[in-house]
Amino acid sequence: MSPTTPTAERATTKGEETRAQILAAAVQQASRAGFESLTIGALAEATGLSKSGLFAHFGSKLDLQIAALDEAARQFTQSVFLPAMKAPRGLKRLRTLMELWLKWPSGTDMPGGCPIDAALREYDHQPGPMREAVLDRQRLLDRELQKAVKLAIETGELAKNTDAELVAFEIMGIVMSYYRGQHVFGAAPAARRARAAFDRLIQSHSA
Amino acid sequence: MSPTTPTAERATTKGEETRAQILAAAVQQASRAGFESLTIGALAEATGLSKSGLFAHFGSKLDLQIAALDEAARQFTQSVFLPAMKAPRGLKRLRTLMELWLKWPSGTDMPGGCPIDAALREYDHQPGPMREAVLDRQRLLDRELQKAVKLAIETGELAKNTDAELVAFEIMGIVMSYYRGQHVFGAAPAARRARAAFDRLIQSHSA
Repeated sequence: MSPTTPTAERATTKGEETRAQILAAAVQQASRAGFESLTIGALAEATGLSKSGLFAHFGSKLDLQIAALDEAARQFTQSVFLPAMKAPRGLKRLRTLMELWLKWPSGTDMPGGCPIDAALREYDHQPGPMREAVLDRQRLLDRELQKAVKLAIETGELAKNTDAELVAFEIMGIVMSYYRGQHVFGAAPAARRARAAFDRLIQSHSA
Repeated sequence: MSPTTPTAERATTKGEETRAQILAAAVQQASRAGFESLTIGALAEATGLSKSGLFAHFGSKLDLQIAALDEAARQFTQSVFLPAMKAPRGLKRLRTLMELWLKWPSGTDMPGGCPIDAALREYDHQPGPMREAVLDRQRLLDRELQKAVKLAIETGELAKNTDAELVAFEIMGIVMSYYRGQHVFGAAPAARRARAAFDRLIQSHSA
């Protein structure tokens, strides 16, 4: 903080705090009821702010939806990808990544599961800016996941000719089947099967 | 049709036809907008029938939702499981099952993808009779899929100690990753990866 502009800085900080508070509520609501439920009116009610206060931060429903999507992606990166970076590159990092991914979103304040996963289902058949925004973030996820797989090829733990796109596709499948399985046959058996599936997958691609 | 009761039979048939027409519209709408969108009023509009006509067939929104869920499950069985039964039991049947599953629901009139998959996401965090109904049908799917895997163990194509629940979990993951991938990187690469993943999976569990 610059000591010469305390008022302006405080104002910015206050504005940022309010924005962060709105976005936290928006991500929770999107997890529960979908991104289409994110109207300025509904968020005003959820946060206790005025509609005009909301409009000062987000000029439109679409602005608010995109910002909520980015906030969900930021939380995911923060909870899954960044901590995994502390594990040594290669298989250890890939396994840490999957373990953290399984824990997310039940470890967070997301009543209805992963909101980015939900967003894809919500918009996959509705052309428009939200569909494009969701697909962009899903593609970024694929690239990051493939990068982690390629590091495990570089360390020699996965075979040289391993198809990183295929492994990323397979890991995504394990995570999705786990999220489904949590509800259908329970969290503990779902986690057991997800780990067994991951082990077989790694074994099948091992050098 | 019995020739002795033509009027009663025709009446039943007409009633069944109307019911089938309502349910076909309901499944399409659930695929696009979720099962919560299935109100008597919305369906009356979609089918051109009167609200009282709708009420004659479905006494409540919940009745209509459960009937639509069963109709979606019936269509899935009809398009995926029944034709796969014509393939010889074992790996051939399992592969046929997966191929037909990948084609469904894009081969049908379902604008928003698999409605039963969507229903799980819609109700997984909403306790109540619809959540229970969705989970019942998902569990039935798991049992049927595991049965097909067990037949491939019995034929000796999969190893004797194969964990059928794990293989069913892994196949479910491939199908879900394929449905996602269709949107994120296109149907052709998604199908290529799904087949490659299935082949590796089978190889990894082979006798």
